[in-house]
Amino acid sequence: MSDNTPAAAGKAEGAPGEKFQKVQHHFCQLTVDDEQLQLAAAYVSDAQYNRNIHFETSPQAIRFYKLYNHWCTQRVTYFFVLVNLLLALFEEPAVYLLPIWVTSTVEFICLLIFAIRLLHFSKIIPAKVLWKDAKNICVIVSILLTLMDMIVYLTLTETGYFVVRWSRVLRPLFCINFTESRQLRRAFRNIRNTLPEITYVFVLFMFSVAVFSLMALKLFAKRKYTTGEGAPYFNNYLDIFFNLYVLVTTANSPDVMMPAYEVSWAYSIFFVIFIIVNTYIFMSLFLAVVYNDYKKHLKNEVRKLVYMKHRKMIEAFDILKVKHGAEFVILESHWRQLVKLVAPEVPSCHRELLWRVSDNEQKGFVGRECFIRLADLLNIQVVQMKERVHPLEKCWPNMYNSAVSQFIRRVVKHQGFRYTYDAIIVVNAIFIGGDESNPLISKAEWVFLTLYLVEILLKLFAYEPRAFFAKSQFWNWFDTLIIIAALLGTIVNTTLKSSGGYNSQQVLDIVFILRVLRLIRIIDSFQRFRVLLNTLINLIPTMLTYAGLIMVVYYIFAIVGMEAFKGRIQFYGANSSDPAAKYCGNPALKGSQFAALRYCKNNFNNIVSAFILLIELTVVNQWHVLAAGFVKVTHLSARIFFVIFHIMVVIILINIFIAFVLEAFFVEYSLARSAIETAVEKKIQELGMGDCTNPPAGDLVEVLETSENDLGNTDDTDLKSRLKFRIASIRYKTVDALLQHMFEEELKPEDEIPTLEEIDNLSPDDYAPKQPTFDSIA
Amino acid sequence: MSDNTPAAAGKAEGAPGEKFQKVQHHFCQLTVDDEQLQLAAAYVSDAQYNRNIHFETSPQAIRFYKLYNHWCTQRVTYFFVLVNLLLALFEEPAVYLLPIWVTSTVEFICLLIFAIRLLHFSKIIPAKVLWKDAKNICVIVSILLTLMDMIVYLTLTETGYFVVRWSRVLRPLFCINFTESRQLRRAFRNIRNTLPEITYVFVLFMFSVAVFSLMALKLFAKRKYTTGEGAPYFNNYLDIFFNLYVLVTTANSPDVMMPAYEVSWAYSIFFVIFIIVNTYIFMSLFLAVVYNDYKKHLKNEVRKLVYMKHRKMIEAFDILKVKHGAEFVILESHWRQLVKLVAPEVPSCHRELLWRVSDNEQKGFVGRECFIRLADLLNIQVVQMKERVHPLEKCWPNMYNSAVSQFIRRVVKHQGFRYTYDAIIVVNAIFIGGDESNPLISKAEWVFLTLYLVEILLKLFAYEPRAFFAKSQFWNWFDTLIIIAALLGTIVNTTLKSSGGYNSQQVLDIVFILRVLRLIRIIDSFQRFRVLLNTLINLIPTMLTYAGLIMVVYYIFAIVGMEAFKGRIQFYGANSSDPAAKYCGNPALKGSQFAALRYCKNNFNNIVSAFILLIELTVVNQWHVLAAGFVKVTHLSARIFFVIFHIMVVIILINIFIAFVLEAFFVEYSLARSAIETAVEKKIQELGMGDCTNPPAGDLVEVLETSENDLGNTDDTDLKSRLKFRIASIRYKTVDALLQHMFEEELKPEDEIPTLEEIDNLSPDDYAPKQPTFDSIA
Repeated sequence: MSDNTPAAAGKAEGAPGEKFQKVQHHFCQLTVDDEQLQLAAAYVSDAQYNRNIHFETSPQAIRFYKLYNHWCTQRVTYFFVLVNLLLALFEEPAVYLLPIWVTSTVEFICLLIFAIRLLHFSKIIPAKVLWKDAKNICVIVSILLTLMDMIVYLTLTETGYFVVRWSRVLRPLFCINFTESRQLRRAFRNIRNTLPEITYVFVLFMFSVAVFSLMALKLFAKRKYTTGEGAPYFNNYLDIFFNLYVLVTTANSPDVMMPAYEVSWAYSIFFVIFIIVNTYIFMSLFLAVVYNDYKKHLKNEVRKLVYMKHRKMIEAFDILKVKHGAEFVILESHWRQLVKLVAPEVPSCHRELLWRVSDNEQKGFVGRECFIRLADLLNIQVVQMKERVHPLEKCWPNMYNSAVSQFIRRVVKHQGFRYTYDAIIVVNAIFIGGDESNPLISKAEWVFLTLYLVEILLKLFAYEPRAFFAKSQFWNWFDTLIIIAALLGTIVNTTLKSSGGYNSQQVLDIVFILRVLRLIRIIDSFQRFRVLLNTLINLIPTMLTYAGLIMVVYYIFAIVGMEAFKGRIQFYGANSSDPAAKYCGNPALKGSQFAALRYCKNNFNNIVSAFILLIELTVVNQWHVLAAGFVKVTHLSARIFFVIFHIMVVIILINIFIAFVLEAFFVEYSLARSAIETAVEKKIQELGMGDCTNPPAGDLVEVLETSENDLGNTDDTDLKSRLKFRIASIRYKTVDALLQHMFEEELKPEDEIPTLEEIDNLSPDDYAPKQPTFDSIA
Repeated sequence: MSDNTPAAAGKAEGAPGEKFQKVQHHFCQLTVDDEQLQLAAAYVSDAQYNRNIHFETSPQAIRFYKLYNHWCTQRVTYFFVLVNLLLALFEEPAVYLLPIWVTSTVEFICLLIFAIRLLHFSKIIPAKVLWKDAKNICVIVSILLTLMDMIVYLTLTETGYFVVRWSRVLRPLFCINFTESRQLRRAFRNIRNTLPEITYVFVLFMFSVAVFSLMALKLFAKRKYTTGEGAPYFNNYLDIFFNLYVLVTTANSPDVMMPAYEVSWAYSIFFVIFIIVNTYIFMSLFLAVVYNDYKKHLKNEVRKLVYMKHRKMIEAFDILKVKHGAEFVILESHWRQLVKLVAPEVPSCHRELLWRVSDNEQKGFVGRECFIRLADLLNIQVVQMKERVHPLEKCWPNMYNSAVSQFIRRVVKHQGFRYTYDAIIVVNAIFIGGDESNPLISKAEWVFLTLYLVEILLKLFAYEPRAFFAKSQFWNWFDTLIIIAALLGTIVNTTLKSSGGYNSQQVLDIVFILRVLRLIRIIDSFQRFRVLLNTLINLIPTMLTYAGLIMVVYYIFAIVGMEAFKGRIQFYGANSSDPAAKYCGNPALKGSQFAALRYCKNNFNNIVSAFILLIELTVVNQWHVLAAGFVKVTHLSARIFFVIFHIMVVIILINIFIAFVLEAFFVEYSLARSAIETAVEKKIQELGMGDCTNPPAGDLVEVLETSENDLGNTDDTDLKSRLKFRIASIRYKTVDALLQHMFEEELKPEDEIPTLEEIDNLSPDDYAPKQPTFDSIA
């Protein structure tokens, strides 16, 4: 490390000459005006966030485009998309019914906002592109259809007709088609691309079930066995087919086998072979095909993504480039202005680091290849660590450095301190499990709360508070928030109790949950578990994409289900004495398994119930009983709804989810860093600013400190502070970044520069939408 | 193609000179005697089948070793291992009870055979190695323990004591520990190596369930809800824990949630979060970890395998090597003798092909590197295709070549013929689905049978019969066998029926199943489905390894279950009027869900029932009801048996099975050929013997024909016959070969020559057993 210091200093000494040169450059290149910089910034920002919008390059359009991508306008759009979706809570069949004019007005406002958003977008891109992008057409059509449906519904309900609010299924389209939900659109597109291959396996699988059903018909129909409920067993081809399909999902195992098995064990061979072939082999085959194909298509998408990113960066480069000798370069000053524009939130010291990584040899400019890397560089999370002086030390240095204080700090930082608290947590767990009415246990809660509070205070005493509550210190945040919430809850609860004997159940429940959550902290003490848990936490953003996907599908099924099944099954309360409660208020359910298992609350009578029911169907178990219930109160064709749901959600979506989690897990668990992260880390080490004890090269710290002051940081008296950086434990700002890392090894270098063939393979909407795509159809 | 012919001919002309040279070599190298050749053959055979036995090199030991590996002695051992396992059918609790002296005598004979097998083995390997190999010690100990247990059991049962035949759980050890079951041993070893990593995830998962259980206890215990059966709901920590564990397996969803959900939908959030975290995320994590680790360990094993194979081949090479110039080589004559010894079943023309591939430049000898490849070459399935003259053409050439005959042949070979029969199959399916008692339908069956028979006869007329029934023609075999069986069955059935009105149900069932199976043939008409199905068929050997693994685990659980639960639950027949039939003959089951669902036949009263029950437990659904039944008739601790079974079989074994199927599927589906297969195929093409219409180089055919005659093929008049080869569609003779192909890309060239580090990493028993390993413990 120390070897680097003189070298770095030497270079710094040579700086004045360089600066002069740079100034010269600057003078002859003042032609780069603000507008060009803005355009370049727009391109870089697009590259950073993988946006593929073919915006116009006029200054006004760029200003509009910047506003369009501003977090504020985006949040507003998201908010209204959410409001639009949540309207289902208040519309017939409602959780809390609002008058129709209220929901209609709100929906109208939402549509208005969407229209404004689209109008805004139309100012950004050329009209020709706008009208050729199926996304936009889809949004316009959806708005018009919804308006039409609203008018028809309002007029017809006034006149007393029964009308279906069918336009409600269009609502998730707004969620999918606003450009910010790239992940969702990509997921849908990939699923569509994966479908053909799945279809082959699916047809083969269905053929297999059909053949087995025919065998079952020939074997059992003539024997006239009866099921446990006395119904005829396996005497109708369609029923057999449905029952065997349910058996593939294992939901009616072993019941479906019992009537035959009771007669002879030999019949069980039929069912065992059926399960091995269909449940184990075909379902594994599904997972394999989904995994294989989805990955293939995803890789292709990521390749396009990388290509588009490079294209954008090259466009930005071409705007700002300056001829330097034989090659074009970008000057340091332009680079700095650009980064400041693109990422104003990045502190200047971090910017300095990025510059040092880009301009590795300190030439005062960057070439094309280096500049292209900027988009990825901006996505790397660098944690900046400052060795700050403890506030107490600043105020009362004598007291803080006294022997007692130093002893306490040493104790807190000792391993034994952690072990002690781990032991306390274990004891606490036992107390939590105990009976609450025992006064000893309810008093003990105060002891534990105090102990935990003392722990946090001691840690704040021993560690610098800002370091303790740094963004990356997940467990410290978790701990403190839980403890404070538990403290508040307990106080509120005790106050309520002592004031009027009133014991708020809700507050108590929350307090209990918080108490139990406290115990999770113990995981942090074991290295292996911490690694596993961090891996899981890192997967959350990716999982959320798929959660969004599943929510969209759920919403559509919920709306359809509500229209089809609302009010057919009634729930009369947990302890209702109404005789109709026994059969869910529908005589068709008398004697059915659905009613016997008390499933009346599993209905489509409002969107919350519908979602919970759909989750139960996703978990698969007993789905045939639930389906049978709805078939009984409607018609046999209702089975189609449940089977389609099973195929779409369980067979396709959940398999894709599992495939993706597996893949992401392998990437995360390998703990491999991407090439570019390695480059940044190397630079950090080189500059002596790594997480090590060596002091960094003096001049750089000075530069960094100075630039920090530019930012208006008032801590400038804090001269002893040391800047340290480290790459945040592989955490991705965006799902795209994870994807890129995932396929990094498989993206060969020749992929980086798009070949003619690749451009041919790109679907047109990747850079300029030309024809309708699944983006907007889904 | 034609370019190759003169070149090959030119080389053939140069042959006499070469032969002279070869003869000279031969003379100065007659020192390679038969014993050396036998030893080399033993090494090559070991390499081909990946055997790792450190046998003695004395001529007698080699003879013994050859006998030991002879298929006959191996089959005898397997037969007695099977008999030993099947004894469970006839022992108390038995399917068909045999007197104790019969089963004891048979078991004694089995043990005797095992002892003889071991004695035989001891003649092959040095005594020191024998006593250091845990496998052998394990077998000896098992034999002794079983004998002891037999004596104790026989004496004590004579005197009227109750004794447990505990030694029966040792029986699968014979299955695992005889050296032929390498696959099984390797699978067990890999599972053991994978366990530590799984354990971490498992502990974290259990911690998660424990924390959720504590939350559930705090939330629900005080509320005193009741379940559907009126039992208290979630009021005891251990019960909650068990119920939530069952919920992870989804078996009690949504029932476990209903009592709370009925009171408030908000409680469902708890269960939904629980399911997302534990069922979806943790179970995916299990699959990911198992997949990752198992693959890692398997790769390591395969690397060792390849290393051992090379070692054996080098040993064989060192025995037969002859100095040629600066390098050592093996002469053609030795090579031929060796291959004849190692693989006497390989036809000489195939051997000629192998030689041409090995000695690519026709030098008359092979070097070390080429010789090492021989082990892999022997494992490639080359299908030899002969364009034979149709027997009818030989007998009645005029008739066979008449215009009518040629027209028929053209019709049969036309696509329309296939389509017609596909249509017939579809119509047949409809008729099968119809009511049997309708005379039209039962008569139609004869029409269809005739149509199918005519199809087969026509095809036999159009195609050469031996080509039609070649080994690789799976569908032709399938078709013909099914049709003949169906024909026989129908005739037998009709005879029985007409003779005395007796309608044998069993025969009829088989006929029905055969009729339905006929329909499967339709898949063969669609290219995509054929590919998928072939992939599946190719995976069968691999799946069988895992089936064996699961069977071993099942057997142990079945024996333990039978000892623990036999006779506790009784089945009284399907239509018993005995009141005890309602509660399975055990009053403890009165009112239980187990009895209500008529699960009485799911018991451990004999090994067949036990296996079926274990399969039901593997399918997971309702396993908690089954477990609850056995808990009621014994003790709460019986839950442990069921939970351990779930963890071992469902969480570990099934996940490994799925992981392996996925991996094997990717390899198979990619249709990639291994490097060595490509080499053989290239040679086939080069020699003009590929599956194309070009005639092969004349001289080679002559050589091949001549050598074929050596083999005693009487068809030598058949001069027009053409020899063709093709690589059998990627099908592996051994699972090892598949494994090697699977990791081929990842086995870097430097792995092929073992480094010192690698030898260190090898577990000692890989070449000479030195210390107890899991091989024999499992």
